[in-house]
Amino acid sequence: MRYAKSSPTFNGDMGMNDCMMNIELRPGRGLQQQIREKLVELIQHDYFGTRPLPSSRKMAQRLKVSRNTVVLVYESMVDEGYLVARERSGFFVNPELDQEPTLKLVQSRPQLDQNRPNWQKRLASAPASFSTLNKDKNWISYPYPFIYGQIEPSHFPIYQWRECSRIAQNRNCVHKWIEDYVDVDDLELVTQIRQQILSKRGITASNEEILITMGTQNSLFMLASLLAGDGVDVGVENPGYADFRHIFNQCGSKPIPLALDHHGLQLGQQLSQCDYVCVTPSHQYPTTVTMPIERRKALLAQAAQDDFVLIEDDYESEVNFIEQPLPALKSIDQDGRVIYIGSLSKSLSPGLRIGYLVANKSLVKELRALRRLVYRHPPANNQRTAALFIGQGYYDSHVRRMRHVYEQKWLLMQQGLQQHLPQCEVHATPGSFCFWIALPPHICSSELVIAAAKQGILVESGDSLFAQERAPKNYIRVGFSAISEDRISAGLTLLGSLVAQIANTTCTQAAHSY
Amino acid sequence: MRYAKSSPTFNGDMGMNDCMMNIELRPGRGLQQQIREKLVELIQHDYFGTRPLPSSRKMAQRLKVSRNTVVLVYESMVDEGYLVARERSGFFVNPELDQEPTLKLVQSRPQLDQNRPNWQKRLASAPASFSTLNKDKNWISYPYPFIYGQIEPSHFPIYQWRECSRIAQNRNCVHKWIEDYVDVDDLELVTQIRQQILSKRGITASNEEILITMGTQNSLFMLASLLAGDGVDVGVENPGYADFRHIFNQCGSKPIPLALDHHGLQLGQQLSQCDYVCVTPSHQYPTTVTMPIERRKALLAQAAQDDFVLIEDDYESEVNFIEQPLPALKSIDQDGRVIYIGSLSKSLSPGLRIGYLVANKSLVKELRALRRLVYRHPPANNQRTAALFIGQGYYDSHVRRMRHVYEQKWLLMQQGLQQHLPQCEVHATPGSFCFWIALPPHICSSELVIAAAKQGILVESGDSLFAQERAPKNYIRVGFSAISEDRISAGLTLLGSLVAQIANTTCTQAAHSY
Repeated sequence: MRYAKSSPTFNGDMGMNDCMMNIELRPGRGLQQQIREKLVELIQHDYFGTRPLPSSRKMAQRLKVSRNTVVLVYESMVDEGYLVARERSGFFVNPELDQEPTLKLVQSRPQLDQNRPNWQKRLASAPASFSTLNKDKNWISYPYPFIYGQIEPSHFPIYQWRECSRIAQNRNCVHKWIEDYVDVDDLELVTQIRQQILSKRGITASNEEILITMGTQNSLFMLASLLAGDGVDVGVENPGYADFRHIFNQCGSKPIPLALDHHGLQLGQQLSQCDYVCVTPSHQYPTTVTMPIERRKALLAQAAQDDFVLIEDDYESEVNFIEQPLPALKSIDQDGRVIYIGSLSKSLSPGLRIGYLVANKSLVKELRALRRLVYRHPPANNQRTAALFIGQGYYDSHVRRMRHVYEQKWLLMQQGLQQHLPQCEVHATPGSFCFWIALPPHICSSELVIAAAKQGILVESGDSLFAQERAPKNYIRVGFSAISEDRISAGLTLLGSLVAQIANTTCTQAAHSY
Repeated sequence: MRYAKSSPTFNGDMGMNDCMMNIELRPGRGLQQQIREKLVELIQHDYFGTRPLPSSRKMAQRLKVSRNTVVLVYESMVDEGYLVARERSGFFVNPELDQEPTLKLVQSRPQLDQNRPNWQKRLASAPASFSTLNKDKNWISYPYPFIYGQIEPSHFPIYQWRECSRIAQNRNCVHKWIEDYVDVDDLELVTQIRQQILSKRGITASNEEILITMGTQNSLFMLASLLAGDGVDVGVENPGYADFRHIFNQCGSKPIPLALDHHGLQLGQQLSQCDYVCVTPSHQYPTTVTMPIERRKALLAQAAQDDFVLIEDDYESEVNFIEQPLPALKSIDQDGRVIYIGSLSKSLSPGLRIGYLVANKSLVKELRALRRLVYRHPPANNQRTAALFIGQGYYDSHVRRMRHVYEQKWLLMQQGLQQHLPQCEVHATPGSFCFWIALPPHICSSELVIAAAKQGILVESGDSLFAQERAPKNYIRVGFSAISEDRISAGLTLLGSLVAQIANTTCTQAAHSY
């Protein structure tokens, strides 16, 4: 809705100079882009009326940019129908812009409070009350972001991604991704994931056994929507990924917390009653321990015997280093009892939201139909670009490169933790992107997290990862994918002093050893 | 998992020439891209072993490309760690590629059928059995695709989108979209949608009342997940969008079909029992009729009186033409009783999956938390690019341009239908992208659809859009957003003859007038 022509704020009363001063050009953004954005805004507010825009020469002087820059903006805005050029008079707002259909005005009656719906009563659940890790959205501004799940922007392979994006956006390729896929996937992406990613995890699957998703969280949500419900027992590792518990709660199954030991998930009676068991064999989330091959085999055997299905979250497997990686649980599954979930979030970027799952063909068929209802399909342009990115070998070379980067970082972390946090019990698994750390029992992790943030250090309290209320309160997770290598040592030194300092005071809450 | 070095298929036995012949360069795709993709594949199969790759001169001759093209590919593959250059000997596969961690081999036991899970029993619902429009995925190869929901690729503003994509992918901007947004939105996109899209529908909303989604389907799914359930009554228009019925079924509410008339949804008793009413006032889906302002006001008054909430799907409003558009129902909602759903699917591209909803602040807060569980957030790179695309005025100028295009097409369609399908009852609403057509009562639409497809004409049967089983079988929907203007007349001529031809035979099933 455009503002009325007679608005005194934007027309007549305010001098052209005053307004133009508002075009503050900021460094780091394209000049044309900024000028154009501002002009579109001014035109929408009908600032120029029927007067000509300032000449390109005047505008260039005023904004301290080259005249050519202004000319290019004006000309592109003629192409887009915002401006018209009149010989010897200059550029004007296209009078046809005014002929856009305007809305009919509608009278409305006064607002009455008793007419408003009672949302409290209407909400079937209240997901906003679910616990979260409460990650600071502004993590990038902290000098020592030891957080998990984000990556250093300088490590994203932007040149290679941009090249693939450019190829996908070629005029001749546009039809491949602007259309509604309804419920199908980009076949090339499925093929590339099968050939270049799943094969490295020892998994063979046909295209009908693979579904592209919006990441691990989305894979699990769709599985839970289809399989969970009242009376369906779902076991989740404790401690474990909090949102997995919340997803099953949301979908009607009360999750059963499962005990761990130093080899990961414990087998035996605790699994017998489960219909589904969520498990992270590569690196248990968040303790990072790897499940040995013998226990994996025993887990599969018990699944067949007690008739439960395993949901394997292989979230960190792609960027293995140092140790010889184990193949995925799915790769040794003979009975179709493993649903495998993976994503590009840890290995490439979490912002792109690209994931995949591998499961029985008939289950994938139902999941595909469900996905149509949930959001139809993951954005087709990103599927296209990712397919090219993997197909051109860029994904593989990126993973190789990152393996070296993370190996260096991991070793620095391990040394730093040994040196600066000697009073803590550190769970260290080569290949994981984080360390799971038990503080001395009388230190509350939540207290440390707050104190650390004040010194520019971000670490995560483990509190929300435990299912039970009376859980140990002295665990933290320290990640290193987001912090730059040259900050690790200084950050851990600071963190160490802080822990030592707090250790000398008494914690207000009782802490339990895990 | 790389293939064994000794594989006779790829090493030694097969001559270099034979293999190279497999690099078939296809027109329309970049040469470097194709050569690179093939080389990555050959290296993964260990085709070259320790032998040098063909020299750039030989390779260029063999592939009939310029030597420079080959040199550029080889050099970029050195940068990516696939190849090494050895002075005077040429290019070799990087021997370090071999030192990648390989998987431990794991013995597995034989597969037993009785160990496999019974998926039939485990599935809580079977969304794959839900009815669909059964759109042909290969619609683009038909000469006369009168389908709804797709767009002509040549109409997508690729130059402008590419420019915004380029700006977003600037090295200095990457950090804005590679990261995990967790549950927040791109603030710039929210602002642009508020200022440039919602304002044109007469809607004012604060940022806390707006949520970015993956399109209309996704908006409705999340609403249903949060609000629907056993005992919650949800009314849907009949005929109406089939997946809306399926979504509520999936989320536990049995949808109640609501009757329409020539002004759209009928008010009165049929709405009284509803907790929620889904409605498409701009253009009723699929009959295209526009609800007059007086009925809109009465609908809002009844909502307040009978305490139901309206879910307004404004799916086609943005590209209005010919008639003066009415403001959205949401714009005259004084009581917070309207949840507004919109998207860029019809106005820009359905493949990008960008939508938004406007609702009460506390409801948006819960939806945002739910979205975190469902898929965290819509891909951040697309949010960034769309924000730039709208901010630079490209969205608005695209919509203006398309308004003219669709106006021309609509008039052609109307004339053609009058001329060639005189025996049909045509529902025509200027501004809609389709026509809802009642065939003569004894013609089955499903029969016509099959016969038409054989002649290269795609039209949609209305059957799946009716909620009841004994629905009229003689409705078709004829869209024109996907077909090019110069095909419309010829397509309708063909369709007209076909209808006339079938009208002269008897339909096998009884048809009911709607």
